Amino acid sequence: MSERTEIADLGEFGLIKHLTKNIELKNASSILGVGDDAAVIDHFGKQTVISTDMLIEGVHFDLMYTPLKHLGYKSVVVNLSDIYAMNATPTQITMSLGLSNRFSLEALDEFYEGVYAACEKYDVDLIGGDTCSSQKGFIISVTAIGEVTPDTFVKRNTAQKGDLLCCTGDLGAAYVGLLFLEREKQIYLENPKIQPDLEGESYVIGKLLKPEARKDIIEFLAQNEIRPTSMMDISDGLSSEILHICQDSNLGCRLYEEKIPIAEEMRRAAFKFEIDPTACALSGGEDYELLFTLPQSEYDKLVLNEQISVIGYMTEAEEGAKILTKGGGTHNITAQGWNAFKNT
Amino acid sequence: MSERTEIADLGEFGLIKHLTKNIELKNASSILGVGDDAAVIDHFGKQTVISTDMLIEGVHFDLMYTPLKHLGYKSVVVNLSDIYAMNATPTQITMSLGLSNRFSLEALDEFYEGVYAACEKYDVDLIGGDTCSSQKGFIISVTAIGEVTPDTFVKRNTAQKGDLLCCTGDLGAAYVGLLFLEREKQIYLENPKIQPDLEGESYVIGKLLKPEARKDIIEFLAQNEIRPTSMMDISDGLSSEILHICQDSNLGCRLYEEKIPIAEEMRRAAFKFEIDPTACALSGGEDYELLFTLPQSEYDKLVLNEQISVIGYMTEAEEGAKILTKGGGTHNITAQGWNAFKNT
Repeated sequence: MSERTEIADLGEFGLIKHLTKNIELKNASSILGVGDDAAVIDHFGKQTVISTDMLIEGVHFDLMYTPLKHLGYKSVVVNLSDIYAMNATPTQITMSLGLSNRFSLEALDEFYEGVYAACEKYDVDLIGGDTCSSQKGFIISVTAIGEVTPDTFVKRNTAQKGDLLCCTGDLGAAYVGLLFLEREKQIYLENPKIQPDLEGESYVIGKLLKPEARKDIIEFLAQNEIRPTSMMDISDGLSSEILHICQDSNLGCRLYEEKIPIAEEMRRAAFKFEIDPTACALSGGEDYELLFTLPQSEYDKLVLNEQISVIGYMTEAEEGAKILTKGGGTHNITAQGWNAFKNT
Repeated sequence: MSERTEIADLGEFGLIKHLTKNIELKNASSILGVGDDAAVIDHFGKQTVISTDMLIEGVHFDLMYTPLKHLGYKSVVVNLSDIYAMNATPTQITMSLGLSNRFSLEALDEFYEGVYAACEKYDVDLIGGDTCSSQKGFIISVTAIGEVTPDTFVKRNTAQKGDLLCCTGDLGAAYVGLLFLEREKQIYLENPKIQPDLEGESYVIGKLLKPEARKDIIEFLAQNEIRPTSMMDISDGLSSEILHICQDSNLGCRLYEEKIPIAEEMRRAAFKFEIDPTACALSGGEDYELLFTLPQSEYDKLVLNEQISVIGYMTEAEEGAKILTKGGGTHNITAQGWNAFKNT
């Protein structure tokens, strides 16, 4: 960035105008967008689904290795992922930002480039927000709104005994990507002259910095008339999410280690850190894949989609939530994933 | 607070469970609340109105003199105010919090007591949120959702030439309340043994710490079939908001200083600081009253409500936005109010 425009020079309203001047509303239900006290959404016999997330610099992201454009993209995508996880279609987002005066207008534009790229890709409208100053760091709060045909949304607490346990894509890559970036950051902090060595790791780093939400899976499920009995997105690691479905549905499960989808790039990368790829998938977090349950009778329909893996099945609660390892052992599934308050 | 429970001891999910265990959904349209990826809202021929705001410790509030319960209450109310300002009825909110480990569970409970008190008073449901750790301070992001009969929402850019310019309640008190609290804070910081002297100032301090949204006015307008031509809430000072309506509607206006509603308590308090009460009303901010325009033919209906003041009228844009002072002078209205980025 060769120029630097102070945000203070625009004032809040000038800033909002600048940031929203190119918005075009795409959804017929977006009646009124940014620029008034509130946005207006219309509905025609649909139900509305709403999700909200906060991302805080130094807690959820590190700007030392997170390009602002990617951050803008990701902050939208992680919210859309929650809407898809309800079996709904996202239609609008609102975005509130807290910014310290360390950020220039050019930096903010870069962030919004990513925001708009995600809105474009997922056909959602940015319809409102709030921009204020923060004393420290960058704070992002996004609320996503989606729609769903009445009573077709899918909750976490409705899995049934005997259901297949399924997940999408591959797991654990974002976590290994984070390990690489944290390692290179430490090396850089100790010696700024050393160039980062991330050669060949673009897959895992891409999974961390620019995740995608599984719009394609929701569309596939609709086209094939598959209605999951329960569903959620995998943001805190597979273990933690499986336990949510088990506890909320009052069930147990059997998870097969060998069935957990792991990308070859992730496996290779995990070995460089001498860690178990399965552990990354179980506890890593930030995958934004979908976890869902289905009646066994739907199995034939699933084989059409190679992005879906059957990884286990649901049992009575008394049988516990267990993983069957490749070595033939059986262990309780435990949530060792991310805990928002332990790290501070 | 005699006990202190560390939030880290509960974990994120334990914390969410703790904070939401008493939620009862009141609106028929709240199909699914906290506890899944997203909340679900139903609609029956209504339009949805959405507004979002972020409040950051040290920027928007000072915990040295802001009781947490009041803060919780206010963080809901300021968002509801935006929904009412669209001529809509708020129905749900989502709330995301960023918390440093300085906060105990007891402190958070106090905050939520205020949140639930506001939800109760205004008949809104808390249907979702996100709770995460922050490196510094307390960050609150609220999204409010409301409903409105199709096409009865009121925007800022639709005022008409000749319309009456009206506002509700009285203005400037919250700003003077802030001056008192800031003064006492400085005295305390210099000498912690001196007791705060806020005797007799409960009106202006109450206006700052525990504002109310003008639900009553929206109900009055509906009952009397009064449809404002434009409306917004007064959060950044009367001047700034009047200029929004003028600019967005491409009009000018005449504002009569003598018509600006000022409470006797505020006038007395302003004199203690040797500042002009009118200046407080014009530039103070945080009033959360409503500003709206109406055809002159509606004047007779307004006299029924002593909470509404006619303060001027709209003119052609060429005539400018001007205030006619008590002394007989005419000045341009300028927005000297709050600028989110100048103070950092």
